[in-house]
Amino acid sequence: MIGHIEAVLASLRATLPAERVMTDAADCLAYGYDNSRRCAAPQAVVVALNAEDVALTVRACREHAVPLTVRGRGTNTTGASVPVAGGVVLTLERMNRVIEYRPADRLMVVEPGVLNAEVQRIAEADGLFWAPDPTSAAYSTVGGNLACGAGGPRAVKYGTARDAVLGLRAVTGNGDLIRSGGETTKGVVGYDLTRLLIGSEGTLAVITEATLKLLPRPTERRMLRACYVDTTAAIAAVVRLMGQADLPCAVEFMDGAAVALAQAWRDTGVPAATGALLLIEVDGSAASVSLTQQAVAAVAAAGDGVVAVDVAETAAHAEALWACRKALSPSLRKLAPKKVNEDVAVPVSRLPLLLAEVEAIAASGGLQIVNFGHAGNGNIHVNILADPDDPAQMSAITPALSRLFRKVLDLGGTLSGEHGVGIDKREFVAWEIDAVTLALMHSLKRVFDPVGILNPGKTLPGP
Amino acid sequence: MIGHIEAVLASLRATLPAERVMTDAADCLAYGYDNSRRCAAPQAVVVALNAEDVALTVRACREHAVPLTVRGRGTNTTGASVPVAGGVVLTLERMNRVIEYRPADRLMVVEPGVLNAEVQRIAEADGLFWAPDPTSAAYSTVGGNLACGAGGPRAVKYGTARDAVLGLRAVTGNGDLIRSGGETTKGVVGYDLTRLLIGSEGTLAVITEATLKLLPRPTERRMLRACYVDTTAAIAAVVRLMGQADLPCAVEFMDGAAVALAQAWRDTGVPAATGALLLIEVDGSAASVSLTQQAVAAVAAAGDGVVAVDVAETAAHAEALWACRKALSPSLRKLAPKKVNEDVAVPVSRLPLLLAEVEAIAASGGLQIVNFGHAGNGNIHVNILADPDDPAQMSAITPALSRLFRKVLDLGGTLSGEHGVGIDKREFVAWEIDAVTLALMHSLKRVFDPVGILNPGKTLPGP
Repeated sequence: MIGHIEAVLASLRATLPAERVMTDAADCLAYGYDNSRRCAAPQAVVVALNAEDVALTVRACREHAVPLTVRGRGTNTTGASVPVAGGVVLTLERMNRVIEYRPADRLMVVEPGVLNAEVQRIAEADGLFWAPDPTSAAYSTVGGNLACGAGGPRAVKYGTARDAVLGLRAVTGNGDLIRSGGETTKGVVGYDLTRLLIGSEGTLAVITEATLKLLPRPTERRMLRACYVDTTAAIAAVVRLMGQADLPCAVEFMDGAAVALAQAWRDTGVPAATGALLLIEVDGSAASVSLTQQAVAAVAAAGDGVVAVDVAETAAHAEALWACRKALSPSLRKLAPKKVNEDVAVPVSRLPLLLAEVEAIAASGGLQIVNFGHAGNGNIHVNILADPDDPAQMSAITPALSRLFRKVLDLGGTLSGEHGVGIDKREFVAWEIDAVTLALMHSLKRVFDPVGILNPGKTLPGP
Repeated sequence: MIGHIEAVLASLRATLPAERVMTDAADCLAYGYDNSRRCAAPQAVVVALNAEDVALTVRACREHAVPLTVRGRGTNTTGASVPVAGGVVLTLERMNRVIEYRPADRLMVVEPGVLNAEVQRIAEADGLFWAPDPTSAAYSTVGGNLACGAGGPRAVKYGTARDAVLGLRAVTGNGDLIRSGGETTKGVVGYDLTRLLIGSEGTLAVITEATLKLLPRPTERRMLRACYVDTTAAIAAVVRLMGQADLPCAVEFMDGAAVALAQAWRDTGVPAATGALLLIEVDGSAASVSLTQQAVAAVAAAGDGVVAVDVAETAAHAEALWACRKALSPSLRKLAPKKVNEDVAVPVSRLPLLLAEVEAIAASGGLQIVNFGHAGNGNIHVNILADPDDPAQMSAITPALSRLFRKVLDLGGTLSGEHGVGIDKREFVAWEIDAVTLALMHSLKRVFDPVGILNPGKTLPGP
């Protein structure tokens, strides 16, 4: 799609001040990357301050068939914010007002550029929180969280972005201002456009306002670490944990390779017999949290293959138990300049089958693969480590991914639990979604975005 | 839309056995009603046994432009199952197999004709449950629950149908078999068609299979009854209850009129000073539930205008405390042969404003209005009672509804929290959803159902 960028710029400059329509190469480059380490400079960057600016920009791009990629803080890992088709980047970082906050109704109405952490900071004062807690929470925007359908460890108890929004305002690719949902926690009037837009990676509409559903924030948290002889024993414990009513608010898994790497970085006190471990958090009131912690510890310890279950008695103890997870990241960075971090999810009980296949893939490709992540949702970050100077290893990555993805789908899983499709997984989407359903999704896309200007080259594979 | 029913029947009879393509007037009449007390006989009733039967029927109706209304057990209250446009009723009551049940993955794959209660019965054996708990659970189908986006009292803690499904298979109005979602509790590949179909009242596609997300079932329940001097005090307590982390699993409200009616039916021990009350349930483990009950009781009692907070110590005591709610239904039935039961929802803190307006509406129309319902979600059943032999009362109903709906929308609410639109609220939908967004919904409808055969005359107002 080659549009008439000059015509778009002329149209926008007739209304917007010059400093909010940037075409300087340095400015464009700064808005061309995301956390996938890809970069493609757009031809222009437009800074929106409100929904009218968004509508104006969308309409100008639509009229002249110029690609439009919307951007928060560019923290996603899949290339979803990279304007690969050129055209205009529309940045919403200055649409960062909290429009309304009503703690009694447990809702906050925000512009898309508000940071996740800012929502949490404001809500915390009233004992509330917003469920999505991606690792990037301190510097990612609500709009980006919604575009990607962000999750995080807490999703195991509190759900993801799709569970955490009451209503949206948005501008479709056709330039129409629409509203979905509202301010209530229940509602069945009209079709659910809210969830359709969440996770659509800016390909259907530009979210200009979101009414966030807040939850009461448990006052207390406790953690425990459960070590097992192997993955099978650890995942059996995850199944037990997720089948009882005192749901943990995090069930983080590390496989044997991850534990060994972390221990190699520094001894964090994990027992030597450990072949896999779980870091478990529970939350609740001051009255109930210790009971829950004990109950969950008993469930974690109730099966075969238990090496040790350690219950954190103090904050310092909790920190010591988390040390193994914290040592993993620097260890990984040191070990492997090239790291492919996949984000697959399978039904929880099938994690041992998935992880056995990953082991076989690693062996056959001469690759080291380290697995950890949100096991309560079956959402595992499969990290393939390779040495960029080793051509054999580098050429083994693509076949390894293909085999991984096939297995994930065979097991009833999905190629992305929370990171999204972006560019990275676009060519694999047709493995997961059948041709008839994909065709329907393309038809829906055409309804929202008839000219196809919104984030071209992302999410859905080419028609 | 006038189609060629004879052509459809000829096509279906070429494949389906005669006893599953019924045109006898008595058979048709039996499938023409729902719990709205409306009835419109279709021209034919088709009994589907599997997705192929569904696809066959949809394609025949599409080819000949014959209306197709899909039906579970017809328990909805809005006319959504009544085939007002004639044509074919497709009944899914015999698609009632549980296809797969995997408690370790907390999922159950069912055909749409399985009863909600059957899902609960099977899941209960493994300490699991499915969140939607409409009053009709014993005899309503999963398919119907999904079509309507069913909720129930438990939604306050566990969500509604949209929160309780991992994936769907469906046949669109175009006759295409599609799949959405999958088997995992997290997933961000492709657009969220699952939630788009849920609550669409059979106007987009026919659900042929649903993968239900099950939750661990708390082993214990406790209840309490909190009586207040007036609605304002009761709703202030609801706000407090919903703002602390020990969320109740039910927060049922009765206004002063409802309490008085129940007490007039029989004395159920409610203190005389009571102007509004809450029936609150909490759940949890054997270890935690009493703590939670006490904590919630303290929160319920912490504000102004408290008459009494009674904590049920035994099952018999709990039953005694529920008696007030149970006496309401027979009392209402005796009092008012004509009862209009609305199902509005507003942000919780605004319930006093809504209920004050309802009082004014009742006074100005000479009507008795009784309010009760799921206050934790701001979802109140507003019951307008009228004597069919009193023309003044009967003619006051429509203006009363209009005024009620206007107020609900002014307060940021929705016209239906859980019952849905069907026929009843169709003409009011455009009050809630703006014209641009409605036009978009119509466009989406055309993508799924280009000929417009699926449940015509429902959900979306006429274009």
